[in-house]
Amino acid sequence: MNVNDSVTKQKFDNLYCCRESILDGLKRTTDVMFGGKQVVVCGYGEVGKGCCAALKAMGSIVYVTEIDPICALQACMDGFRLVKLNEVIRQVDIVITCTGNKNVVVRENLDRMKNGCIVCNMGHSNTEIDVASLRTPELTWERVRSQVDHVIWPDGKRIVLLAEGRLLNLSCSTVPTFVLSITATTQALALIELYNAPEGRYKQDVYLLPKKMDEYVASLHLPTFDAHLTELSDEQAKYLGLNKNGPFKPNYYR
Amino acid sequence: MNVNDSVTKQKFDNLYCCRESILDGLKRTTDVMFGGKQVVVCGYGEVGKGCCAALKAMGSIVYVTEIDPICALQACMDGFRLVKLNEVIRQVDIVITCTGNKNVVVRENLDRMKNGCIVCNMGHSNTEIDVASLRTPELTWERVRSQVDHVIWPDGKRIVLLAEGRLLNLSCSTVPTFVLSITATTQALALIELYNAPEGRYKQDVYLLPKKMDEYVASLHLPTFDAHLTELSDEQAKYLGLNKNGPFKPNYYR
Amino acid sequence: MNVNDSVTKQKFDNLYCCRESILDGLKRTTDVMFGGKQVVVCGYGEVGKGCCAALKAMGSIVYVTEIDPICALQACMDGFRLVKLNEVIRQVDIVITCTGNKNVVVRENLDRMKNGCIVCNMGHSNTEIDVASLRTPELTWERVRSQVDHVIWPDGKRIVLLAEGRLLNLSCSTVPTFVLSITATTQALALIELYNAPEGRYKQDVYLLPKKMDEYVASLHLPTFDAHLTELSDEQAKYLGLNKNGPFKPNYYR
Amino acid sequence: MNVNDSVTKQKFDNLYCCRESILDGLKRTTDVMFGGKQVVVCGYGEVGKGCCAALKAMGSIVYVTEIDPICALQACMDGFRLVKLNEVIRQVDIVITCTGNKNVVVRENLDRMKNGCIVCNMGHSNTEIDVASLRTPELTWERVRSQVDHVIWPDGKRIVLLAEGRLLNLSCSTVPTFVLSITATTQALALIELYNAPEGRYKQDVYLLPKKMDEYVASLHLPTFDAHLTELSDEQAKYLGLNKNGPFKPNYYR
Repeated sequence: MNVNDSVTKQKFDNLYCCRESILDGLKRTTDVMFGGKQVVVCGYGEVGKGCCAALKAMGSIVYVTEIDPICALQACMDGFRLVKLNEVIRQVDIVITCTGNKNVVVRENLDRMKNGCIVCNMGHSNTEIDVASLRTPELTWERVRSQVDHVIWPDGKRIVLLAEGRLLNLSCSTVPTFVLSITATTQALALIELYNAPEGRYKQDVYLLPKKMDEYVASLHLPTFDAHLTELSDEQAKYLGLNKNGPFKPNYYR
Repeated sequence: MNVNDSVTKQKFDNLYCCRESILDGLKRTTDVMFGGKQVVVCGYGEVGKGCCAALKAMGSIVYVTEIDPICALQACMDGFRLVKLNEVIRQVDIVITCTGNKNVVVRENLDRMKNGCIVCNMGHSNTEIDVASLRTPELTWERVRSQVDHVIWPDGKRIVLLAEGRLLNLSCSTVPTFVLSITATTQALALIELYNAPEGRYKQDVYLLPKKMDEYVASLHLPTFDAHLTELSDEQAKYLGLNKNGPFKPNYYR
Repeated sequence: MNVNDSVTKQKFDNLYCCRESILDGLKRTTDVMFGGKQVVVCGYGEVGKGCCAALKAMGSIVYVTEIDPICALQACMDGFRLVKLNEVIRQVDIVITCTGNKNVVVRENLDRMKNGCIVCNMGHSNTEIDVASLRTPELTWERVRSQVDHVIWPDGKRIVLLAEGRLLNLSCSTVPTFVLSITATTQALALIELYNAPEGRYKQDVYLLPKKMDEYVASLHLPTFDAHLTELSDEQAKYLGLNKNGPFKPNYYR
Repeated sequence: MNVNDSVTKQKFDNLYCCRESILDGLKRTTDVMFGGKQVVVCGYGEVGKGCCAALKAMGSIVYVTEIDPICALQACMDGFRLVKLNEVIRQVDIVITCTGNKNVVVRENLDRMKNGCIVCNMGHSNTEIDVASLRTPELTWERVRSQVDHVIWPDGKRIVLLAEGRLLNLSCSTVPTFVLSITATTQALALIELYNAPEGRYKQDVYLLPKKMDEYVASLHLPTFDAHLTELSDEQAKYLGLNKNGPFKPNYYR
């Protein structure tokens, strides 16, 4: 059961959680002021969208890189300049990777960054920044505090590398209990569904969580916000061709 | 070929276009100032998200109603109070429907609105507001300008009904050429695909536009924004298990 | 009595009103889509701040020019790149002047704009754009609709000039009744004060409206928003050294 | 020399700095998720404006209390419900004081808050929250971590009190070097001015920093943002009646 691609996980764990943890992770490690800073965010999926929205709101000037034209066009419509990394690498104060890809920031990019540039990863695993390429004799590493290294070039230029390129939000921030609750509920329901499912419903394969369960997870968390859901009348349910208790959207809906 | 549910159509025509046309439609018809106004938006799909974001940005206080707990939770996380219509109907200055449902605003709601309340529909067709219920002898209709009616209660209360409950964005605003271009390109590509498809690819059914075409539509519009797409290296494409030319996302991705 | 520099006039007429009328004026004249557009705003006073905030919220990428380092630094902290006009003139889709200065956009700038660039003025009078410089034989003017001229270069390039460089918000938008009410109330109170003032309070000079009257104007408009003001307790007023009925701020407070 | 009321100090130290430190202070102490939370901010001066803007951007629903009708009207136009504290005290998740006043949050308010409500002070000194009123026998204090106390009511309700009501931004966050630099430069220039001033320029009194120095402080910090200031031409300076090197604004300008 692929819980990672369920709507609640995608939106809440990735988008909404990262919107907050990118700020938190950067503050706790570097005390950087966001206002007026130039930032490049590599990748405009849910995590990238969250990072960009938060930094824009705090007064940063944000550039985006993307490989997927649909996400690229979304970045444009959301007010971000879509660039190739090399176009802005000399001028930015912060570089954030959230692509799920490997070698997105390589030694050649790091060589061209300006003094004091902060480099960190919000994507997955530790492949996005080629940290191994910084383990060469001419560069000096200085651990300035937990999770923060200064990598020093022969000319004195310093790059501030966070969490050695591992995930900033896990290493240097915290995960709110609300998000943990969403994720844990989703996982628990997936297990219950697998356990209770009549033989044959699931074969040897990977499945998305049924929409209805995703909706159930969400509905369990609404009272936290004192949020009041509207119920369909019989007439409306019939008009829409829906069951009054859901699911309300097709499985592919995001 | 279901073009309406393709990503580009959903996001660009609905979300990004409505973000602008809700403001435009309200201004052209009523000259209302948005700052400080209380607004309830019924429905938090793409259209509702666009309306809410725009009005929040202009300084309105926005309430949301929803039937789907996932969209409801998104409204919460985006900073909107999730309410039932009756909780706020007496205090709001503007009521906007974008549910795709019928009878979302009925006579009972209209009776309770305050003097001067503006009522309009951004959803689909003209079913969302029960306009027929306002055609009763005790209410007076006054056409104050094109697309704007005052419906007057016996005690003098006036409701400002826009476009007689039909679509505000079509009736009272304009559709930007950019959005038309996105939609027309999507439709044209769908027709070309159907024409060129080898026999058997499509049966008597409704299909979503293949992801790759959706991406192609998007890529054709990037130069408008002087946007520069990043290309995958061979090594990266292999790592991600993707073709360098896309599709970059699974078909269900939104 | 200098009503123009009173806080309510400055903030409400300039900042909050222009935040809405820049969008309205551009839409009614050009139907331009704001998302993804590059815009340069000349001047970051109250009017410029309003224009920038609105366009940023609609997904435009906004650049700012300024002469005053304090306003310039504010633009930076609010997330706008501070540039000289020539740095971005070739790439922007919209140019907006709000400086109160003259010849901010001159023929040399207009010559370098790209095809289809929209040029308009939100500042004061009609001096900011050097429109006279466009009245030369090699340029063709085409009136495409009320308040909208295409100025056509010999190579076919078209600049979209709005309201012939006069005020966009007055020519192509409307002023909300709320803002009119604020301004009219301020003026009326100023006249009453002058009429009632004991001889000698005002000499042959220009005065700012007394703070207390500014506050009174504001308090008269709070009920519109169903807004509830908190009152100082006797103990709190004493602690702050204030009269319970105001004025609450020094005269120079903005 | 009153440095505290200079524009740069007011805007940068208070507005822009607090916009970031309210988020930072809350995260470091409580790991609270901001999305969907209901917050009341007491006071809508520069500090309050910064707190409100940051929390709204992170998806909180923010209510404001004010005593000054001008600031109150600004809160309305910025999209915040203006309430009396008692109207929302039962429903909010976070209470933030930034009034500069005393006893803004008293025992009666604390008694009515809901379980888990976070209470903190961003204003001045430690007078805003009546912490002394919580030192009564029936309430239990539990220090859960540095700067964080749980105050426990007999029925088990817990209030999360930060920094014992002292300044959150100083106690639980950090001040960015950029803001320190602005403030220190302002102070140093004030001292230099006092030292160099010809006898008689300053009497035994409190003065605002001359505008020109405020502008000089700002101009020294523009290169940090790679910001390019525009210079007035001779013709423009003459038109505006200004010296080309400033001051560009009257002393009372904010």
